[in-house]
Amino acid sequence: MSQLTGAAVVGQSGGPTAAINATLAGVIKGVMGKECITKLYGMRNGIEGFMREDLTDLSEFFGNAPEKLDTLCATPAAALGSCRKKLPEASDREFYEKLIALFKKYDIRYFFYIGGNDSMDTVAKLTAYLMDSDWEMRVVGVPKTIDNDLAGTDHTPGYGSAAKYIAATVSEIIRDTAVYTVKAVTIVEIMGRDAGWLTAAAGLMRAANMPAPDLIYLPEVPFSFDRFLEDVKAALSVHPNVVVAVSEGVRDENGRYAGEGAQSGAADVFGHKYLSGTGKALELYIKEKLGCKVRSVELNLPQRCAAHLQSATDIKESLGVGAAAVNAAVDGASGCMMAMERSGEYDISFVAKDISGIANAVRSVPREMINGRGNNVTDRCLEYILPLIQGEVHNEFKNGLPVHLVL
Amino acid sequence: MSQLTGAAVVGQSGGPTAAINATLAGVIKGVMGKECITKLYGMRNGIEGFMREDLTDLSEFFGNAPEKLDTLCATPAAALGSCRKKLPEASDREFYEKLIALFKKYDIRYFFYIGGNDSMDTVAKLTAYLMDSDWEMRVVGVPKTIDNDLAGTDHTPGYGSAAKYIAATVSEIIRDTAVYTVKAVTIVEIMGRDAGWLTAAAGLMRAANMPAPDLIYLPEVPFSFDRFLEDVKAALSVHPNVVVAVSEGVRDENGRYAGEGAQSGAADVFGHKYLSGTGKALELYIKEKLGCKVRSVELNLPQRCAAHLQSATDIKESLGVGAAAVNAAVDGASGCMMAMERSGEYDISFVAKDISGIANAVRSVPREMINGRGNNVTDRCLEYILPLIQGEVHNEFKNGLPVHLVL
Repeated sequence: MSQLTGAAVVGQSGGPTAAINATLAGVIKGVMGKECITKLYGMRNGIEGFMREDLTDLSEFFGNAPEKLDTLCATPAAALGSCRKKLPEASDREFYEKLIALFKKYDIRYFFYIGGNDSMDTVAKLTAYLMDSDWEMRVVGVPKTIDNDLAGTDHTPGYGSAAKYIAATVSEIIRDTAVYTVKAVTIVEIMGRDAGWLTAAAGLMRAANMPAPDLIYLPEVPFSFDRFLEDVKAALSVHPNVVVAVSEGVRDENGRYAGEGAQSGAADVFGHKYLSGTGKALELYIKEKLGCKVRSVELNLPQRCAAHLQSATDIKESLGVGAAAVNAAVDGASGCMMAMERSGEYDISFVAKDISGIANAVRSVPREMINGRGNNVTDRCLEYILPLIQGEVHNEFKNGLPVHLVL
Repeated sequence: MSQLTGAAVVGQSGGPTAAINATLAGVIKGVMGKECITKLYGMRNGIEGFMREDLTDLSEFFGNAPEKLDTLCATPAAALGSCRKKLPEASDREFYEKLIALFKKYDIRYFFYIGGNDSMDTVAKLTAYLMDSDWEMRVVGVPKTIDNDLAGTDHTPGYGSAAKYIAATVSEIIRDTAVYTVKAVTIVEIMGRDAGWLTAAAGLMRAANMPAPDLIYLPEVPFSFDRFLEDVKAALSVHPNVVVAVSEGVRDENGRYAGEGAQSGAADVFGHKYLSGTGKALELYIKEKLGCKVRSVELNLPQRCAAHLQSATDIKESLGVGAAAVNAAVDGASGCMMAMERSGEYDISFVAKDISGIANAVRSVPREMINGRGNNVTDRCLEYILPLIQGEVHNEFKNGLPVHLVL
């Protein structure tokens, strides 16, 4: 493969994670010392910012202060900003011609895009368009999503830290709920509209012989309020403090979300339909049916931004996959995503995979990782997740608060 | 003061915190080596468990394995269990006679009760009853509450860890909200029905020159939806990602809670009034008025049980106040609470204070710690809180998860 010399640009796209900046740091480290990459631009707010030439010179910012890379790794959410833009179809020639003109203007020969499904779609479309253009540029996607639902990779950077936060927090909530003797049900709502990987992580304590949630519901199995009630009754007959972990995306056999039940009847003071959330809907249901103390907790944004509880394994891999993407591109790879492959006990290698089979595919929790009744995960599932949350990162605190980098 | 020899009993009461077990560890450490204390019992589920003689022998459990005290300090929520029972009035002679009979049966001469306002009420009533009884026993209250609303002490054990968790988490949420360019308002609901100390902690980043919430509302100042709307509009004119911290207990001049607005019109599918929560009510209001993207996040239980992010200062003081309570009781103190006094830059001393002025008093955030418009805290407020969140405790993790002690 011939050497290609010019500038590189990196962008972040999609929802924030606690590790996406570690991957950005990996790209920056990967570029350092590469003679064929003359400069590294960061695009602000992904491809949207690139289109309006909102670029920042990362070579200059970090070249003079490499220690800032550690702070970048410890900073949650996308330091370059993000966007939710999907690229138009190739028929929108005006858009792509403008894009190519900008690549030429800034002499951009390497394009790194860190993100999830939509971002890999961007990589795929850009790759396809470049085939027919007169501009040679290498395009590599770098995976990121707390949802762990990207195809073609053993798992996604960002998932391990989210899983660790969820498991640790649910473990603490279990301790909290155990202090009283009255019957009580605590429902923890966890992110995941279509894939249950995050909610499955709430079961990790079982693998460590610690108290775990009694019941775990993922969107991969149709949800039934009747069966849920039976499950809760059975759990309450064993001990008074029942803890339930539920994906926000659980739905019945007809695809009706569990949260829709409570929404349909509820209107707020302004006449709006009330979007109650799945946990709240389950809380109201159990309160109605059993009359016992019920509470719901929505873990919400901290699931994806709690950088103070990053998984050391996740951060190491997130850095690694970013650097590997640069190495692969310099070696000639393009139109691919850097995937992670697992072998042996837990050995991870980085492999460039053709983007065509990855973009727009969704990887759900396989049925064999969920128990027969659909109210918990299997040991096999926990064995898969457990290595991803190993190790603690003691990020810098100053004045008692975590230190973040603002780019 | 004559020496009093016999057994001691310790209990935990009220809501859990991330530091109440450190105070229990402090009592256990304080008892070790005291010749006049023959044995230390733990009462399960506070005074309720004591009444049914549900006691555990802490001398035996920890005497053989003092290293377990470190794990106890790292464990959130009350390891002995808790209760919400208030003692009856002294006229209920049957209750108190049973109580005294149990003290005699177990030869209990020292009674330590770790808790908040209700628990100090228990200490006060017990002290009063003992005056007229034939049983000599020393009763000392040990403060605990994340709410920081106990009178007679500079601050309460447990508050510092909750404040640290809130400040760090809001700081991470601010990073999360900063990634998009569209106008958006994020409302973070923080615990505190009557006192705004926890919500005030969300402003700590300002003292560290880091991005802090634009607006902070405490229950100490009457809340106005109209003024709130003006504040949000003004903030949005400065930057697109506005973050608001609000106490669950904010209410208007007539004492009507902000959450009641949305509750009054909303009913769920079962016909129940919908308890929306304060953050949700504010979210709906801004959505209605401004039509921009609005989101609310309720920090919920993790505020009081996130032991993985304890404040080192809080844990040191929580241990210290427990041990100081034992020392004071052995030296003759009774009918008191161990308070913390601050002097100089930040020197803390433990002082036994008469319980009569403490029980059932509430310490709010003083008006001078809140700005004139009532939408933020003053520097003086932050200077008061900042020392309480200093230092990180790197608790033990195993298998990637925090290690907890189950008694």
